[in-house]
Amino acid sequence: MKRVFITGTGMTRFGELWRENVESLVQIAAGEALEEAECLIRDIDYLVVGNMLLQQLEQRALVGALVGESLGFAGPSIHIEAACASGGLAVRQGVMAIRSSMAKRVLVVGVEKMTDVPGSEISRALMAAGGEDEQWAGTTFPALYALMMKAYMRQYEVTIKEVAAEAVKNHEKGKLHPLAQFRKEITVEDVLASGLVADPIRQLMCAPISDGAAAIVLESEGDNRKIEIAGSGQGGDSLSLGKRKTFYTLPATKIAVAQALKEANLCIDKVDVAEVHDCFSIAQLMALKDLGLSEKTVVNTSGGLKSCGHPVGATGVKQAVEVARQLAGECGKRQVTEAKWGLTHNVGGTGAAAVVHILRRHNEN
Amino acid sequence: MKRVFITGTGMTRFGELWRENVESLVQIAAGEALEEAECLIRDIDYLVVGNMLLQQLEQRALVGALVGESLGFAGPSIHIEAACASGGLAVRQGVMAIRSSMAKRVLVVGVEKMTDVPGSEISRALMAAGGEDEQWAGTTFPALYALMMKAYMRQYEVTIKEVAAEAVKNHEKGKLHPLAQFRKEITVEDVLASGLVADPIRQLMCAPISDGAAAIVLESEGDNRKIEIAGSGQGGDSLSLGKRKTFYTLPATKIAVAQALKEANLCIDKVDVAEVHDCFSIAQLMALKDLGLSEKTVVNTSGGLKSCGHPVGATGVKQAVEVARQLAGECGKRQVTEAKWGLTHNVGGTGAAAVVHILRRHNEN
Repeated sequence: MKRVFITGTGMTRFGELWRENVESLVQIAAGEALEEAECLIRDIDYLVVGNMLLQQLEQRALVGALVGESLGFAGPSIHIEAACASGGLAVRQGVMAIRSSMAKRVLVVGVEKMTDVPGSEISRALMAAGGEDEQWAGTTFPALYALMMKAYMRQYEVTIKEVAAEAVKNHEKGKLHPLAQFRKEITVEDVLASGLVADPIRQLMCAPISDGAAAIVLESEGDNRKIEIAGSGQGGDSLSLGKRKTFYTLPATKIAVAQALKEANLCIDKVDVAEVHDCFSIAQLMALKDLGLSEKTVVNTSGGLKSCGHPVGATGVKQAVEVARQLAGECGKRQVTEAKWGLTHNVGGTGAAAVVHILRRHNEN
Repeated sequence: MKRVFITGTGMTRFGELWRENVESLVQIAAGEALEEAECLIRDIDYLVVGNMLLQQLEQRALVGALVGESLGFAGPSIHIEAACASGGLAVRQGVMAIRSSMAKRVLVVGVEKMTDVPGSEISRALMAAGGEDEQWAGTTFPALYALMMKAYMRQYEVTIKEVAAEAVKNHEKGKLHPLAQFRKEITVEDVLASGLVADPIRQLMCAPISDGAAAIVLESEGDNRKIEIAGSGQGGDSLSLGKRKTFYTLPATKIAVAQALKEANLCIDKVDVAEVHDCFSIAQLMALKDLGLSEKTVVNTSGGLKSCGHPVGATGVKQAVEVARQLAGECGKRQVTEAKWGLTHNVGGTGAAAVVHILRRHNEN
């Protein structure tokens, strides 16, 4: 099986980017990634695009070719839709393309432009990733994660302050990330005083609505291969929460991490840095437990979805960008020392899809 | 590189299937494919779903998990959107999954439910796959293909009767296909007397709006491997027709077929049966020329998109089903004798994406 290396990374600032559109966002992110990989768009032989909402909100299809056209790329492309896991699964498709020898140099781009429509419309649009029963019942994702939060707090005797502390930690990190949407510290008191969204979830426990794009270049052979995707895993589950046995764990995460670790021949304790899917603060607590991350692992140096922002289709790709940059020692004030192994964890819906990648730094080529 | 075999095929009837929904359609098609592959849904380790419109028309996302839930499958899944090439690219993703060793037994399902909304809404929805300039100009796909038809007729001195004859041929074949939408013969006069849609395209030169699903099971190792996917190719191009040098050829098709033939180590003259993408009759003429098919190749035994129907996401998978069944000698009245090599050709938009597969029958295992 061919080995897969990340040879270029790029991302835009995440946030309310009124002056940018999908085209300009992907141009920034892909341009950076290509430059770092020391190649041109014509050197790419496969383009993978992770995006959830363009088709739903703007009636744009053939999204692979659409993003390709923005980049001056007319080669083969594919569009992956998996709600909030679109980006992570796009990375996995890129890995698959290299491993299958069907592509030699893959550009993976994740993008979402969410702030051009009212927040209420976005909430409804995101609910497309829920079960039909959940849609009919009028639930929203905050409501579904609120059920999970209650179950988790009861199961593990966790207090609401402990949940709130996850948001606080992510803002501490995001403050140091120049591309993050919210670069300010918050306190547990701030979180608990913020508006109630769906009891017990409060506003500052929720990832924001964001615009942004992220990109990586994947290659197999050649020189200067430092950051490897050493393992890739994907788990699935029912679309509807109501069809699960319990609400306090995501079985898809457990499947995905076990598979990724096995491929990388790694023990989870060895992971130095991890980007985990904190669409809500409770999701971060669940992820830490389901992944089995040790205390020493530094989590969400990007600020996570909460502080860095959550442009849905971009998030999974941004996680790979952040971890690759941490392993390469390029993260400035938020740099973790001596990081060798990294992990990314991206979730779709309430856990109907989860994807985990293990990244590794090689000192010698 | 691992070899890829089709071990099971299934499809629903194509047409206006008022009593079926997406869930029941995929259950029928996947059920058949699994039965033929002599396995159960729990034996599948990867599900690939080709679908264009569920998200756009019905606000349903995470379509991989959605279809999975309909099938009682909670494993890893992926949703591919590439407009009318969604099905063909789903097949290619299945091939990629096997070749990469990331899956052992893949279920590829293509599905579309189009007749629940008014035709005018479908036309607008399909136009999502056009270029932004084309959308703003108010063009439709018939209008864009009309430009291509005019250019082709002028370039190759083809008459409108010759274009109409392609529709007639497909209805002759479709009449013999029990699952086809339109099982009646038509004449060139019928075609030319039918309503003008976009000059010079007439109604009977257009594929219909359809409901339907198709499915295949892909495997690598094991017994009873008779039908192989021996080659897979994908080409891309600009989204907008206006950015092409000429209108009478689809470069994406040429790239895709060259790649697929090279993988299969085959000369195009050897192809016995082919399913080509005739969203409009002119598209069939263009496909025959771009693919370079010889006179001896029997084309669109299923009836093609014109007579068999065109449930967008299902079409590319149905092409693989039809060719696999031809090679296996299972096509009853429409069976082509002694077919050993087959080809499928699926196009997205006006040729922004094209995918070609070469199928081969093995007499011995």
